[in-house]
Order: sequence, then structure tokens, then C-alpha cells
Amino acid sequence: MIVVMKPEATQDQIDHMIAHVRELGLSPQVLHGTQRVVIAAIGEERPGMVETLEPGEGVEKVLPILAPYKRASRELKPERTVVKAGRLEMGGVAIGVIAGPCSVESESQIVGLAIKLAKLGATGLRGGAFKPRTSPYSFQGHKEDGLKMLAAARDASGLAIVTEVMAPDQVPMVAEYADVLQIGARNMQNYNLLQAVGDSGKPAMLKRGMSATMDEFLLAAEYILDRGNPHVMLCERGIRTFEDHTRFTLPLASVPFLKEKSHLPVVVDPSHGTGKARLVPPMALAAIAAGADGLMVEVHDDPERAVSDGSQTITPALFADLMANARRIAQAVDRTL
Amino acid sequence: MIVVMKPEATQDQIDHMIAHVRELGLSPQVLHGTQRVVIAAIGEERPGMVETLEPGEGVEKVLPILAPYKRASRELKPERTVVKAGRLEMGGVAIGVIAGPCSVESESQIVGLAIKLAKLGATGLRGGAFKPRTSPYSFQGHKEDGLKMLAAARDASGLAIVTEVMAPDQVPMVAEYADVLQIGARNMQNYNLLQAVGDSGKPAMLKRGMSATMDEFLLAAEYILDRGNPHVMLCERGIRTFEDHTRFTLPLASVPFLKEKSHLPVVVDPSHGTGKARLVPPMALAAIAAGADGLMVEVHDDPERAVSDGSQTITPALFADLMANARRIAQAVDRTL
Amino acid sequence: MIVVMKPEATQDQIDHMIAHVRELGLSPQVLHGTQRVVIAAIGEERPGMVETLEPGEGVEKVLPILAPYKRASRELKPERTVVKAGRLEMGGVAIGVIAGPCSVESESQIVGLAIKLAKLGATGLRGGAFKPRTSPYSFQGHKEDGLKMLAAARDASGLAIVTEVMAPDQVPMVAEYADVLQIGARNMQNYNLLQAVGDSGKPAMLKRGMSATMDEFLLAAEYILDRGNPHVMLCERGIRTFEDHTRFTLPLASVPFLKEKSHLPVVVDPSHGTGKARLVPPMALAAIAAGADGLMVEVHDDPERAVSDGSQTITPALFADLMANARRIAQAVDRTL
Amino acid sequence: MIVVMKPEATQDQIDHMIAHVRELGLSPQVLHGTQRVVIAAIGEERPGMVETLEPGEGVEKVLPILAPYKRASRELKPERTVVKAGRLEMGGVAIGVIAGPCSVESESQIVGLAIKLAKLGATGLRGGAFKPRTSPYSFQGHKEDGLKMLAAARDASGLAIVTEVMAPDQVPMVAEYADVLQIGARNMQNYNLLQAVGDSGKPAMLKRGMSATMDEFLLAAEYILDRGNPHVMLCERGIRTFEDHTRFTLPLASVPFLKEKSHLPVVVDPSHGTGKARLVPPMALAAIAAGADGLMVEVHDDPERAVSDGSQTITPALFADLMANARRIAQAVDRTL
Repeated sequence: MIVVMKPEATQDQIDHMIAHVRELGLSPQVLHGTQRVVIAAIGEERPGMVETLEPGEGVEKVLPILAPYKRASRELKPERTVVKAGRLEMGGVAIGVIAGPCSVESESQIVGLAIKLAKLGATGLRGGAFKPRTSPYSFQGHKEDGLKMLAAARDASGLAIVTEVMAPDQVPMVAEYADVLQIGARNMQNYNLLQAVGDSGKPAMLKRGMSATMDEFLLAAEYILDRGNPHVMLCERGIRTFEDHTRFTLPLASVPFLKEKSHLPVVVDPSHGTGKARLVPPMALAAIAAGADGLMVEVHDDPERAVSDGSQTITPALFADLMANARRIAQAVDRTL
Repeated sequence: MIVVMKPEATQDQIDHMIAHVRELGLSPQVLHGTQRVVIAAIGEERPGMVETLEPGEGVEKVLPILAPYKRASRELKPERTVVKAGRLEMGGVAIGVIAGPCSVESESQIVGLAIKLAKLGATGLRGGAFKPRTSPYSFQGHKEDGLKMLAAARDASGLAIVTEVMAPDQVPMVAEYADVLQIGARNMQNYNLLQAVGDSGKPAMLKRGMSATMDEFLLAAEYILDRGNPHVMLCERGIRTFEDHTRFTLPLASVPFLKEKSHLPVVVDPSHGTGKARLVPPMALAAIAAGADGLMVEVHDDPERAVSDGSQTITPALFADLMANARRIAQAVDRTL
Repeated sequence: MIVVMKPEATQDQIDHMIAHVRELGLSPQVLHGTQRVVIAAIGEERPGMVETLEPGEGVEKVLPILAPYKRASRELKPERTVVKAGRLEMGGVAIGVIAGPCSVESESQIVGLAIKLAKLGATGLRGGAFKPRTSPYSFQGHKEDGLKMLAAARDASGLAIVTEVMAPDQVPMVAEYADVLQIGARNMQNYNLLQAVGDSGKPAMLKRGMSATMDEFLLAAEYILDRGNPHVMLCERGIRTFEDHTRFTLPLASVPFLKEKSHLPVVVDPSHGTGKARLVPPMALAAIAAGADGLMVEVHDDPERAVSDGSQTITPALFADLMANARRIAQAVDRTL
Repeated sequence: MIVVMKPEATQDQIDHMIAHVRELGLSPQVLHGTQRVVIAAIGEERPGMVETLEPGEGVEKVLPILAPYKRASRELKPERTVVKAGRLEMGGVAIGVIAGPCSVESESQIVGLAIKLAKLGATGLRGGAFKPRTSPYSFQGHKEDGLKMLAAARDASGLAIVTEVMAPDQVPMVAEYADVLQIGARNMQNYNLLQAVGDSGKPAMLKRGMSATMDEFLLAAEYILDRGNPHVMLCERGIRTFEDHTRFTLPLASVPFLKEKSHLPVVVDPSHGTGKARLVPPMALAAIAAGADGLMVEVHDDPERAVSDGSQTITPALFADLMANARRIAQAVDRTL
């Protein structure tokens, strides 16, 4: 860390901070600039150190040097992680595509749709059995019955099941039926849930919180990795900004950034990322061009009859077009699909 | 709702949407504007209706008319709610002040500090036993031992205990020791937790998520209220924006806005809201001037030795000054403290 | 517009608003919902009408129905606009590429670089002669001398010159040398400048303000169009958000959105949009995949010696790679480059 | 500056950066941390230096140490600046209040209103003669006629005139009639305008751009100060965020922050800052409690008939209440009004 003292800091205050740096187990090195003194604290930065140095009297600011995540970092593991779950594979040359409805509505719906999606080239099936809904008056999902419908859809289609788990005590049940445990954007910093998913050892799809920085996103992944579960996929699904023509703002520069900093696969969800069905196909193509390892797309036979998220859901016919175009883009960036 | 059709919408598409509105149990009324047709859907809007109308062909946009929350609304309950928990009271003429360290560190620390804070006029004691930390490598709290230390501090000081609960299955344990269950900003949309806190019947302090809109904030409160627990306090603690001179942006206009729309008490946390100890006192005063019913402030005997959040923590001496100044502002807005 | 009355609005207040709507030349239609009265105001919405209705007593909110821009809209002009300036063409099947340094530094620099860029397939040359700099102590550009250097580079390379104009009284001078007048993000709502560029009749490159909504962006274009100048290109260059791993957040969903709403060509600037040279190539490819009509990229022979924006500038060698990859993506979306 | 090298940086890359730091006239000091090498560059940081160091090979990031503004800084001028313009005074013990309509509509309107406002304790009169409007179809102001009406209002009321100037070539004309030249939020980084206002020597009211950081805001002030004009007031008027219940988000922590970093007076505009008349009074009080030196408030005899900004405008009756309450808050923070 770099402790920047105020120009008016006294020698006593400087000495106090030097001692404080030593107390933290770091080695202080004092630099006398033209306008102020700077103390470089050499050694391993640990979380919370910045917070204990900042309140020191005479301190102007404290700058961290090292990234706060370790296991998610390419510094620790330079080779890319490939997450596999049944037919689904994310992080290799092939681009994985997870498609399906927002909510599982009935067995016939999900089985029929899964068969269509598999034919069109999807490798994973999404569908919510436990639904985190903004309003308590919205449909909350079919819960365990929904999980059983998903399992039936896997049997019929061969697709890997990706479904959300909302609380630590649901993890065992969801893990019994699903191939990938999804942690939703609203739960990205639900640490008890992250730990429970980590303990399960199951492949995890971690969605970026809508106001999470890259450091916070990778530290959330770190919670899962730290429990000994290396099967983590990162999913960019859009952030909250002032923009009002889309439901969220989909910032695709996070894709090459995450792939530079981390070895984990990066998936993009253009459905939540835009909230508008018409914008899903172009943003899906853009995601692949930006280097994404996979897509997660909401598809429903009849979006007007979908119990949730109809506005951002495309039909199987549009999904077929999307796949055809996505294949061309994948080829253009030396990937397959 | 108002369904706005595109200028090029066909009569078939318009007829289809009229039928869809009827299917939802609403009464359609068709308005022929100069440039497009608009269908007003008269009746009770329910969550999800906008989403099912938006994908309709020929639809440009769908505008909701009613607020999505009911029980949190002043339309349903015009008189103000006063939440009481031991000595703490929020929502009446008196302004409640909850103070204390970020984390409970030891029994002697928390008991000693609680006695000081009670003398200075605080009515509640904050302190984390379960700590949601961005990094898995940070101190995670003393857990049940921390709760016992808080209970000892209540016995010694008379202050009401406000402490965070992070998972549904922790609710019974935390409820045994605490007077108020705090739901942290990162868990504002952890719906299973909201329901568990609702079921507990205990007073709840619901912190605004850092990217939550007012509708989302009030709908999160609705999850607790809907379980039959009316003792909900709303806490503004700052939002994520592009500003980088503070840790978060503290948007105080939410205080009068929430008090206009809802009957629930509104508390402000200037410590998390700014992240800088020097900015806490002026923003605490501003919060009261804006109409806040209470404050939540981080205080520690020695912020440089605090295990967490030192940067935004003030000393008891500064807290004493803050209370003196806060009293003057409270008087100026016809409140007491 | 839709005027939503409060549930407690009196009949007098409703009558008053009905009269106010009539006064505005609109035809009021009253809808009695289950919980409140809504007044639909039929007729042409003009700017400012919402503002005069909102302060009415008993009014809860006023919702606009129509888009505020006209000439920029595809409703008025469904066919796409193609902007031509010398060799540069934006809005047709071919994707235009504008490349060059942030600032014009010397004649030899800009001439040499322009020749290289033209060989690699660029069709326009960017380079600042008048530089809007955050600090008054930064290099402010070579001004008219810089314009002359750009003109020399055009003579040598055949590229069209795109350069920024910062004030209305600079428009005639810049228009004498340049092929395209650029309006910078910080000046997107400098209305006197927009009008002066409109009056010049010259092709204009309008950069999106870093906190501009789509409506504001298209209304800024409207200022130019309204002066009888149809040669307007829209440039997405990133917005201000909480993200701190990039200089701005580049929200590519604006590309298909703008192309749906407007007939004007849409260009993307991945250099300002990310602020990091390493992220420029993947985001350039993503922009084309999302449907962009053109790119604007900062290139410098030696970014470490650039007088400005070195961090986001790529070398000619990297630009050559980018062009090769961009060609493949262009083909995959049935465009040429 | 602190140049942080990547862990895999070679000795050649490190040597290259050391030489580059020397080339910039700074003195390099090399620190060997446990995981990477850091080069501290001792000496005066100048704008643009970070940008030239960042593209260096092997460089991970470059951290600036010093604030980029000088003349606006309290390091250079610790004593507070008091700006005086006729009866208006900002920065002393007394809180200045500028009130008036969004637009000057007619002489009788502005003169009548000015007399009322002066009686109620305002010291400045606001009112737009040149109006920056989002849409070209909105009322653009009465221009020079409007300035004459303002001058008449000054003669009748004794209030100082504060009015916006939109382009460099309007400065002489506006300076002839006005006491304070206002630079609007959309023009905060219109550098030619800032310089022209600097050259005029007239008191300036600089409004914060809606996505400006504190550094950018103070650097914009620096443009005026650097021209030898010390009479600069800073005005916080709200920022663009995801919040949609207010027109902008009014972040009052900027008030104590700016007063800590700068000697310039800080004014708050709760009208633009909220966009809702009902929220103006509580936020005006909060601004004073937070330490603001002045207020700028939109007042109109009949907001429903205002040609612009009616939604955020209060009546003289509400302004009278606001002043009474503001006086009590001012007293509570040892200020007068």
C-alpha cells in the first residue's frame, strides 16, 4: 500500500504511521516528495489494512497496490479453467449456449422447449424453479416440483440444467436435480449462499451484481473457490446506470477485462442485460465478438404468455436465427458453436 | 396500465392487445391519438402484467400507473408507523440514534462503548456479530459469541441492540439476543431472508440496496410487512454512482420522498453513506434537516484499531459533538433528540 | 400525455386539469380507474407540456407518450441516411473506419501516420487541433496550425479529415480545413455550437455526452438537423457509471437501439469508451457485431510519446491486426470493410 | 506518481520505465515489494504524465498522488474566499439566497417577483435570458430583451442579477447587464466559455456538470481562476444516477468535501437537484445543515404557467416558509440568513 500524508502532516504523525505499518507486519519505506511525504508499505496487503491506515491523523489517502482476489486470479493460475457439466462446457474453444424460459411453468412446457433448444444447438437449459421476484405478489416459482420438471427436460433433451438457488438450505435439494447452481445477481454478495454453493462442489454460475465492481465480482467468486470448488463461471448480466432505454446497461468491456485478470470462463446474458427482446440478438453477437465463452438467453414458445420476463424473451424461431448468426461470429473469432 | 401502440400497428395487432387486456381481467379503453393508438387498461394492476403486455406485436411501450407496493404505502395507511424496541423509538417526534462499532470485537470493548454512547444520548447500539465482508479473507465476526457480548452491553447500558442477520437459518438465534434485526444493503433483495425476518415478528432495520430504486426498496419492505410484521424501519445508506470522493453517494432526497409515499420510519446512515469519518457529522445534520426519523452512526474508541470500517468511524469525542449539534438541528425542525 | 391524478384528488382539481389540457390545445379524455382518475391528453405533445402539467394540484405524475425528437426519427424518415465526406462513408453496407492520434502533434507525425492508416484500410483521419482538456495546464492543441497539418495529411493520404470544433466562432475556420466537424462529448449540449455546425452544412460527428440519455442524444442531433443540415453521424463513446476498471462504460446496446429509432448512422469509439488500449480491439469487434456503421479509433506510432490519451491508444501494428479481425466480423454480419 | 509494474515485468521493462520517469523531470525511486516492483516518481506531477506512463510495457497501473488543481485548492490559499456582487455575498457567515424563475418571461413578471423575493430575504435574483434547452423546439429565452428586464428588476429590488451565459461571444453582452455570470451544468466543460468568463473578471457561478467528479469540477473552476478571475462560486445541482424518483440525485456530501479541499464558496440548487417542488424545501434545509454557503431556488408566481421547469418551481408563499425554516437551521449551525 501507499500511504499519502497531507502536506501539513507533522513528523509525529509520520512516525506514528510508520509504526502502524510495521505493526501490520509490513515494511515501511519513506519517500520525501516535493510536496508531501509518502510511506510505501512493502509486503503482503491483506483485506482491511487500508481501512485501518486511513483514519490515521495526517493521512490524506491510502492506495492499495495488489488485487484483493487470489484464487480467481491469473497470477495464481495462468491457464484457463474449463467448467464442464454434462453436455455443457464453458471456457474452451467451443462457445456454450444456455437457453430456456425465465420460469419453469409446466413439465410439458419445459420438456417441449428443451427438445427444440437442443436441436438448435443449445448445450444447457435455464429455467427458474425458485424465483427471486421484486414483488412478494409475483409468481415465486414451482420450487421442488419445478426442479423435477427440469430433470425431466434433461432426460428428454440431454441438456445440462442450470437453475437458481436462493438460500443456503436449498442448496442440497437444488444440487440433487441441477447440473449447475446459479447464484442470481441480487445474491452475488449473499456470502452464506456463496459458501454453501462452494461446499456443494457443484458447478456454479455466478451472476454479476447490478452494482458490483470487478473486484467485488471476483471476490464473490473467491468465496466459492476458497471452499475448494473450482467450477465457477462468471456471468455478466448488466449493471444499473442512468440509462432508461434498456432495463440494465450491458458493459461488454468486462468480458476481455475478466479474461485478462481471471482464468474463469465468462458468460454473457443479453436478455437481462438489455431487458428488450429486440436487442438480445445483436448483443449476443457482440458478446461473442468481445470474447465471451458462452451465452445465457431467455427463450419461450409464447413470450406474451410467459409468467415472467416476457419483455426480454425471444421465441424459438428468433433463437434459431440467433444461433445461425452466432455461429458465423464464432468462426470469425476462431471459436466454434 | 397504458399500452402505447406503434404508429404502424395494424388493426389486428390493436384488437389482439385489447383481447389480451381483457384476458388479464382489466377493462380496455381505446384512445385514438393523432399519431398512434393508446389502450388504457382500467382495473387493478398486478405485478408481471407489464411484462406480459410488452412483447405483444405492434406494442411500443407499456406504462404502469399504480405503485407496485401496497402495505408500505401511505395510501393504505396514512398515519405514520412508530417502531419501538426497548429504549429505541423511530418515527415519532423524537429522533432515534443508533451508534456503535462496525464489528463487535470483545465484551469489554462493546460494554464500555455502550455505556459511553448511552450517556451521550444514543438509544440503540449497533455492532456486527455476523459480518458480510466483500473478501472471504476478512474478519467474519464473532457470531454467537458476538451476540452474547451485545446482550451484555444492553444489560450494562440499557441500549436496544441492532445487529445484522445474514441468512434465514440465523434468524432464530439472532432474534434471541437482538432487539432489532438488521438486513444489510447486500441482502436487501435476499427474499428468503426478508420472509424469515417477517415471520420472526421482530423489529427490522432494512437497509437500502446500493442500486435499489425506491420501488424496489419499498417492495423489499413489503416482503416483511406481507408476513404480518409491521415493525419495519427503512435505512438510507447511500448508493453506487460514478462519484469517487466518497465510498457511496448519500442521496438525502430519498428521505422526504419515502416519508411522502410510505408510513414507515426513515433512518439515515451517514457512515456507510460517505465512507469518510470527516463527512459523517455534516451529513448527519443534513439528514435530520431533511426530515430523517433517526441516525445510524459508526463509533469506535480507536478507529485505527477497529477491525473493520475504520475509515468511516468517528470517536466518542466526535460523537459527543455531533449529538450536541444534532440537537440544535432537531429543534430547528421541531423534533427532539 | 397521460395525467395521473392522486387517489385523493378532488373533483375541482380534476376539472382544473381538464381545463389546463384544453388550454394546451389538446383534447382531454377522462378515464375512471379503480383507484384513481387518469386524464389522457390527445393531440400533439410539445416540449415543456409535461412541465406545465406536473405542478397542478392533485397531480401525481404526467407520462409522455411520444418521442420528443422528430427529424432524427425513423417515423419521419424510414430509409437510412448515408453520410459521405470524401472517401469516408457511414451508414451504407461498408463500415467506415476513422483512425488517428488524439492530438495532431506535428506535420511529419500526422502525414506519416495518415499514409500508414490509409494503406491499412481507414477511410477517415482523426486528430485534434483544438483540444478540450480537463485541466487548463494540459496541452490545448496546435489550433489553426494543427488544421493545416491535417489538410496536408489529407493531401498525402486521401483520408477524410475528422476534427473537433469547440466554439461557434471556430466553426468557419475548422470547416475550411476539415471534412467532418466533430462535436465532443463535453459539448453535446452546447446548443450554440450545435446550431453553428448545423448552419455550416458540413458533415457532423456528434459524440454522445457521457451522461446523456438516448432522447437527449437524439435531441442534440435534432438541433443540427433543424438547421437544415442532414449530414449527422451519431457516435457512442461511453458513459459515466460506477465502473472503475475502465475509463467509461461502453454500452453497445445503444447501437441497435439508435438504429431502430433513427435513420442516422451510428459510429462507436472504443478508445474513449474503454480508456484502455488492451480493451480497444475486442470492443471494436463487438461494436461491428452489434450493428455499428463505423469505428473511431485512436492510433499513434508511439503511445508512450503521445501528448495525450496514450493509455487508450493503439499502435499501427495493433491497428493492422484489428482491421484484419474486423473484416472477418463485418463479413459475418453481411457488411464490408 | 506511483508506477506499479506487473508481476511478470522484465528488468528491461523496469529499466525503461525508470528512464521514462527521469525523462519527465521526476526522480524515480524503486521499491521491491513481495510480489511486484513499484516505481515512485518523486517531483511535481503535471497533467498528462499518468497517460504517458500507462502505455509502457510491463506497467499494470499508474496512481497519481497530488490533486490536479492548484489555484482552487486550500493548500495554496487556506483562507476562505468570499464572493461579493452587489447585495449578494457568498462564503462568509451569512448564507446567500438566489431565487427567481427558470426563465425571464416579461418585465412585469420579473420585476414584481424580484420585489417580493427581496422582501422575503433573497439577496440575488436568478432568471434565464439565454436558455439552454434540451429540445430545439422549446422556448429559448428572450435573450438581450431578457437581460434588460433583469436589469429593471435589479433597479426595482436591489437584488444582484445571476444569469446564464451560453457562448464566449455572449459574455460581453451578459456582463453588461448581470452581476454574476452563470455557467450551466451542460457547459461546465465548455472550456472556451470558461476562459471568456475568466477574462471578464465578473463574479461567476459555476454549476457542477451532471456527471462531473470533484476533480473535474475544481479543474473547471481552475480554468476561470487561471485567467486571473478569483470570484468563483461552485454550485452543486445534482448528478445523473440510476435514481428515477427525482430528476437528478443531489449528493450533499460534496458540500463539506469541497469546503475541505477548496477555499471557494459552495452553493446548492435544490430545484434542479431534485426536479420536484415538494422536495425543494427539505433539501434546501439539508444543504444549509451540511455547510452550504448559499442556495439557488426556482420561484414563480404560478408554476403551472411557467414557460419552463414548472415541476421543480415553488411559489412565493412556499418560499416564504422555506426562508423562515432556513433561518432556524442557519442559526443552528452558527450562520445567519
